[in-house]
Amino acid sequence: MTPPQRNPEDRPVAALLAPDIVALLVESPADIAAETEEIHPADLADVADALDRDQLQKFLAALGASRAADVLEYMDEEVRTEFLEGITPRQAAELVTQMTPDDRADALEEIDEEHVEEILSEIPKEARQETERLLSYEPDTAGGLMTTEFVSVSADATVEKTLELVRAVARSGRKEAMYAIYTTDENGRVVGVISLRELLAAPTGAKIGDMAWSEVQSVRSSADREEVATVIADYDLVAVPVVSESGHMLGVITVDDVIDAIQEEQTEDVQKFGGMEALDEPYMQIGLVAMIKKRAGWLSVLLISEMLTTTAMQHFDIELQKVAVLALFVPLVMSSGGNSGSQATSLVTRAMALQEIELKDWWRVAARELPSGLSLGAILGVIGVIRISVWQQMKVHYPSFPVGYDYNLCRIPATSGACPAAQIIPHSWMLVALTVGLSLVGIVTFGSLAGSMLPFVLRRLGFDPASASAPFVATLVDVTGLSIYFLVALIVLHGTLL
Amino acid sequence: MTPPQRNPEDRPVAALLAPDIVALLVESPADIAAETEEIHPADLADVADALDRDQLQKFLAALGASRAADVLEYMDEEVRTEFLEGITPRQAAELVTQMTPDDRADALEEIDEEHVEEILSEIPKEARQETERLLSYEPDTAGGLMTTEFVSVSADATVEKTLELVRAVARSGRKEAMYAIYTTDENGRVVGVISLRELLAAPTGAKIGDMAWSEVQSVRSSADREEVATVIADYDLVAVPVVSESGHMLGVITVDDVIDAIQEEQTEDVQKFGGMEALDEPYMQIGLVAMIKKRAGWLSVLLISEMLTTTAMQHFDIELQKVAVLALFVPLVMSSGGNSGSQATSLVTRAMALQEIELKDWWRVAARELPSGLSLGAILGVIGVIRISVWQQMKVHYPSFPVGYDYNLCRIPATSGACPAAQIIPHSWMLVALTVGLSLVGIVTFGSLAGSMLPFVLRRLGFDPASASAPFVATLVDVTGLSIYFLVALIVLHGTLL
Repeated sequence: MTPPQRNPEDRPVAALLAPDIVALLVESPADIAAETEEIHPADLADVADALDRDQLQKFLAALGASRAADVLEYMDEEVRTEFLEGITPRQAAELVTQMTPDDRADALEEIDEEHVEEILSEIPKEARQETERLLSYEPDTAGGLMTTEFVSVSADATVEKTLELVRAVARSGRKEAMYAIYTTDENGRVVGVISLRELLAAPTGAKIGDMAWSEVQSVRSSADREEVATVIADYDLVAVPVVSESGHMLGVITVDDVIDAIQEEQTEDVQKFGGMEALDEPYMQIGLVAMIKKRAGWLSVLLISEMLTTTAMQHFDIELQKVAVLALFVPLVMSSGGNSGSQATSLVTRAMALQEIELKDWWRVAARELPSGLSLGAILGVIGVIRISVWQQMKVHYPSFPVGYDYNLCRIPATSGACPAAQIIPHSWMLVALTVGLSLVGIVTFGSLAGSMLPFVLRRLGFDPASASAPFVATLVDVTGLSIYFLVALIVLHGTLL
Repeated sequence: MTPPQRNPEDRPVAALLAPDIVALLVESPADIAAETEEIHPADLADVADALDRDQLQKFLAALGASRAADVLEYMDEEVRTEFLEGITPRQAAELVTQMTPDDRADALEEIDEEHVEEILSEIPKEARQETERLLSYEPDTAGGLMTTEFVSVSADATVEKTLELVRAVARSGRKEAMYAIYTTDENGRVVGVISLRELLAAPTGAKIGDMAWSEVQSVRSSADREEVATVIADYDLVAVPVVSESGHMLGVITVDDVIDAIQEEQTEDVQKFGGMEALDEPYMQIGLVAMIKKRAGWLSVLLISEMLTTTAMQHFDIELQKVAVLALFVPLVMSSGGNSGSQATSLVTRAMALQEIELKDWWRVAARELPSGLSLGAILGVIGVIRISVWQQMKVHYPSFPVGYDYNLCRIPATSGACPAAQIIPHSWMLVALTVGLSLVGIVTFGSLAGSMLPFVLRRLGFDPASASAPFVATLVDVTGLSIYFLVALIVLHGTLL
């Protein structure tokens, strides 16, 4: 027997399961629990996502409350929300009560407030209060990610007693986080941590307080999920405790929730960097209208900002008419600024997300980007000058062009594209090449600086630095880039035509 | 006592530790092991990163081989590599032998081949062969991430016997992955899995085979790290077994290594999307020259590709001279194509990374992007038309412009910017607005389609779809966008000036 392989080409077990389960729902719902016992709830959730409300309700009932809660946890958020809003509050309450406190809060978070109130009123008091407390945290913070069920013991407990407690918790079927066990003092403050593995290795008679680590990595309940991810990743933890300002232990965040949070955060960051609002739903599942809403806003804002380029072009209209050749290189120089800005922004937003740099590091970043930008600009400038020189020397002509067209300046506006030989300013193509080359140095330097500073500015203003998208930076740099280009032209071509 | 808080503002314990440890190294190295016993190796690694080679060697020796191996694991890759290359092969071998097989392979991966051979020859035979086997896998695949030390038992073993085995393994100080225990058949194929938590909850007399899950999520050794991350995230696993083509269990990947892999992959993807090679080093640590090398390549390629815009502009030079007003909107229409392309690319590359879409889904994506692009283009087109109409009606003039300048076409080239009243074509600004509006529809649609298809094309050609960067897409769309713009102008303005 070959173990089940996960291969993107032959997707989930669930696709195979679905027809069987639908058949069972009709024929003998009582067998469903036993038949699906060995199947991971994530796979059952894929089946559940595809059922209609009645089928789903029957299916969850057949699974039994505890297993149904597992399946609900893994279901598509939207399908689950719609389902929980569609059944009676009492039915919904029965289902969510079985979920772990953090998953319950996550499930209720999505439901509209009115329904939540009704469902909460049907939940046993203790669980209700706990859920309300969890719902009071921002979903993207440590408080919003944590579960309140964990194993903690007094530092005086023996290893054997602690292990017994852990086994009792495991047997109870409750879903406490238990791969890390915390010792707390009489005030509920964390004073130590021991992993389950270390507990199993510890001599049985020893006191937990002597075996536990006294340096406990923890996060505040208000910590951003990126910070939680950094702590978990840096210290290779299976769970991290969440503490209040005064050091009281409020809950723990387990590594599986952190992975989900990292994936979600990264999806949001990538989409924002692409120049749109985060979709908050898988690409293939979101509705067309919803997707257009998420995309149209930024596109419109960027279009409107980009209209400043038209203003800038109009501002230099006379120069453009006198030296028509300048227009040819507008897209080239502009895009180089956007590209270098996009590089700098991606570097800085990512380093911020990984907590490698803080707000106060802005000048260190600027001090790196200035020489980088100058060097990169110089490289591009040389390439630009070479391109113009080669084309000029090779007299690269296009079929639609009258013979004699080149990058030299013409003393009169050449309406047919050709400049009468007597009006050509000899060797003036070199000035054009110089204009493009110097502009590239200026624009790439400005692009690198602007792109690297934008995330700092956004963070300083209280926005998400990840909103500094590639198109945002490009637009920002386009307008300035155009102005740099024309100013360089005015200086270099001064005394010839301008 | 408040537990240690992790707060980005008051960085690591390590910064405080460093002077103490340096002092201890001089005064009483023998105390170092005891003094640092409670400190997480990640924090000691931060200290170690800052020491010079002699100090570091002394420090690691003082810690003892096993603890030194832990510290090495967490150290900065470059510092560690330089250190291991700098000491004798025998010394290096002693240190790396204590590391877990996967960390040992990771450490040796970075070292130059000659040194690796010498170090390997000093490692005990069994460990050497294992390391050589691990080194043979690509670092970014499941094989490159896995460790070969895990706990597996026969399905016939009892729960109690298995638990004893687990405790023995934990006590041995070896670092086997043990939060998931696997049952294998006589041929070494995985047939079941039980988590440590489930093992602790299981009735003591039961057979492991009856308690374990028979559906085992596993990955092939050649699986990409993104696929590993998806399996771990979808099923909330603490470890995933790696199997050969024939289903033999080769090793396991633990969740902490997956988190590191996810973070690393994401950093690479963000940097690539920003239009550069992945840095492979933290932004604040990489040298200026190394960073410029990573950035200059793509910038130059993009600049050279963008030169096609110059060609396109030259191609339409006559039109530009006849209808100078067209030049004003070039940056505007071009950038909208790049922006919509960037959105589509970020959506598709991310969905690919999350394994939400596969190569074969290309037409489903195209079928979504076509209507999205048309709708977004229509929205932007309307905004563009409104902008031109409003400016025209309000006669927005700029100080540098002669009175009378507007978006109407002029029958003669107006060299001074002003068009003699008799030469103005009445109401022709509407044609200009129509040109811009229709171009935006065409360009945004094309941008969305091109941006969404590029990752598919790259993957099909064997490249990383994440190389489809925002600047790459923008450049691709710029050239086509310009051509669309001028073609629309030729059609709309046909019979007036063109």
